[in-house]
Amino acid sequence: MAPIDPVRLTADLIRCPSVTPVEGGALQMLQELLSQAGFTCTRVDRGGISNLFARWGDKGHGRSFGFNGHTDVVPLGDEAAWTMPPFGAEIKDGVMYGRGATDMKSGVAAFAAAAIDFVTDTPPDGAVILTITGDEEGDAIDGTTALLDHMAETGEKMDVCLVGEPTCPTTMGEMIKVGRRGSMSAWFTVTGKQGHSAYPHRANNPLNAMARLMDRLASHQLDQGTDHFDASTLAVVTIDTGNPATNVIPAQSRATVNIRFNDSHSGASLSSWLQSEVDRVTAEFGVSIEMKIKISGESFLTPPGALSDLVAGAVEAETGIKPELSTTGGTSDARFVKHHCPVVEFGLVGKTMHQVDECVPVEQITQLKSIYARILKDYFA
Amino acid sequence: MAPIDPVRLTADLIRCPSVTPVEGGALQMLQELLSQAGFTCTRVDRGGISNLFARWGDKGHGRSFGFNGHTDVVPLGDEAAWTMPPFGAEIKDGVMYGRGATDMKSGVAAFAAAAIDFVTDTPPDGAVILTITGDEEGDAIDGTTALLDHMAETGEKMDVCLVGEPTCPTTMGEMIKVGRRGSMSAWFTVTGKQGHSAYPHRANNPLNAMARLMDRLASHQLDQGTDHFDASTLAVVTIDTGNPATNVIPAQSRATVNIRFNDSHSGASLSSWLQSEVDRVTAEFGVSIEMKIKISGESFLTPPGALSDLVAGAVEAETGIKPELSTTGGTSDARFVKHHCPVVEFGLVGKTMHQVDECVPVEQITQLKSIYARILKDYFA
Ligand SMILES: [Zn+2]
Ligand SMILES: [Zn+2]
Repeated sequence: MAPIDPVRLTADLIRCPSVTPVEGGALQMLQELLSQAGFTCTRVDRGGISNLFARWGDKGHGRSFGFNGHTDVVPLGDEAAWTMPPFGAEIKDGVMYGRGATDMKSGVAAFAAAAIDFVTDTPPDGAVILTITGDEEGDAIDGTTALLDHMAETGEKMDVCLVGEPTCPTTMGEMIKVGRRGSMSAWFTVTGKQGHSAYPHRANNPLNAMARLMDRLASHQLDQGTDHFDASTLAVVTIDTGNPATNVIPAQSRATVNIRFNDSHSGASLSSWLQSEVDRVTAEFGVSIEMKIKISGESFLTPPGALSDLVAGAVEAETGIKPELSTTGGTSDARFVKHHCPVVEFGLVGKTMHQVDECVPVEQITQLKSIYARILKDYFA
Repeated sequence: MAPIDPVRLTADLIRCPSVTPVEGGALQMLQELLSQAGFTCTRVDRGGISNLFARWGDKGHGRSFGFNGHTDVVPLGDEAAWTMPPFGAEIKDGVMYGRGATDMKSGVAAFAAAAIDFVTDTPPDGAVILTITGDEEGDAIDGTTALLDHMAETGEKMDVCLVGEPTCPTTMGEMIKVGRRGSMSAWFTVTGKQGHSAYPHRANNPLNAMARLMDRLASHQLDQGTDHFDASTLAVVTIDTGNPATNVIPAQSRATVNIRFNDSHSGASLSSWLQSEVDRVTAEFGVSIEMKIKISGESFLTPPGALSDLVAGAVEAETGIKPELSTTGGTSDARFVKHHCPVVEFGLVGKTMHQVDECVPVEQITQLKSIYARILKDYFA
């Protein structure tokens, strides 16, 4: 089998319009390619979402190295603002354009190409497993989680896993992610008593309580950071009332906050802190406050060690840059994988992800394949 | 001329669907009735609004007593919730139903009936002036102000004026209004810097500044009341952002506050207080805050004296209740009339005003006519 060109494979994947939850032919294409290379492929479809599990090597024989990624992409946004066809994969001045160019069809193409070449040229005494989902950008309920459930049910196991999401802020090779802060949102509905602006003492203005609560939450310092994590943050993302009448005190107001938290908190500990602040304001203002919480993910850390050394060594060998081990950034499917095995993330420069004219320099795709190839070689050495 | 039945006149007026700015035939009907009784009537129409000026007696001869009121009404609100026809003036168990039943077609009917009977039966050595507008519930730009402008231009003069708005909270006769707090609104737009919830330090969340500003404004005690006035009040009536995305820190948020203020403040002094609070938060948070202010009316007072004694005496004689002299409540056109002459307000129980199934006990309409008649008699005695 000839070496796989990751640039061409990226282009082929970009041309599949796989906006979540549409499969768009992307997983089908990968399945055919991997099957031809001797991978055992299983489509793990759940809740209208397509996912692909692929293993080279025998189940349970030797060490197994896993890659995880996604072929689904976010919507185009302001389609008229794109200057290049968003599903065209056109190359201009050495840069390929299209939705998913960095997040993360290039990453999937690079690890698929590296894996196929590796097992073809130097078959390892173990297994290489690819878990590729079509539901990372959506609710992520039936994506990587479905793949991990399938693996648990069928006795499949990765010993370590590398998620191929873009991780580098500006320069290829500068950052590996070894964990993530947790993320949660809370929705507040403050209910007082409606009334006339001229008689506020006959009403109970929910906005007074809301302003106090949001001021307290926003100005509270959750912590100052921990060994491997930045400080936790809380953002009030919206306060809404919808009262157009200046002579009316409204009955209700709503707000939402989002918290990104490190390993000095948990979703549960933050929930009870929020509840205590709610209780305090409820008592002070005599309003009622409903709070709904959604914990998108707890914080997690794969402590620096063998896996991060392996990846960092390969990155430095291929790029000359010693990558920083970071826990910054938004959530990724690594938050699910960490329940299965040690996981780190390394991929391209993420600058244009989710934006109009998302793009990737083609040489970085080739470089990423080389890094992934070296990681496989070193892991099984 | 037979005595005018104020109940029937109220019903006739309710059947004119005069939702601001529509005249609806109400002023036309009054003009015909007053003209027949010897009043000199002038339609003072401005900016698409109809108003009626009516004088009995010669201009500038003797003392002149004025009544002021409006025939326009607020919209029906939830029309399906009305259990009686809103323009039907139907009477059930001695209560007449319809939009404007208390605010204030009954008031206009009562003073028009009292004035006509009075000048017919006991022609005074002076003038009785009625100023009736079709723009009290709307912007009030081309209503009573247009009538007062017309009077200034044509040398018309009221020595004192009684506004016939509903003034009694629950029992007929219990309250005369001798002034009003001022009213102003302020609109705030806080602009920060948009960003991702995971990186609040790269953004500048306008909601942090907004919550602090609104908390400070809402919790500040403006004063504790003055001799004739309740304490000034500030109500935050809305805070709005409209950001549906929990992972986005918005660029902007808007809020509105409404202030009702007594004679220890002015629109100007409060504007500069608001500006100082805006400046303080701007400096603390590094945001920019745009503030727009509209002063609907300054506070005013007709100090208790001859006019309030006259009205209070008539009220007590007819109802047996000694009315309280109050400055509570929302704005009324008395805020314009006070620039022309001493003004007080007395009218019906206002409980159902602006509500679904607005209604008035018919005997209160008759009683109100008797009170207004006694005021005229005593004034010219
Ligand atoms: Zn991604
Ligand atoms: Zn009114």
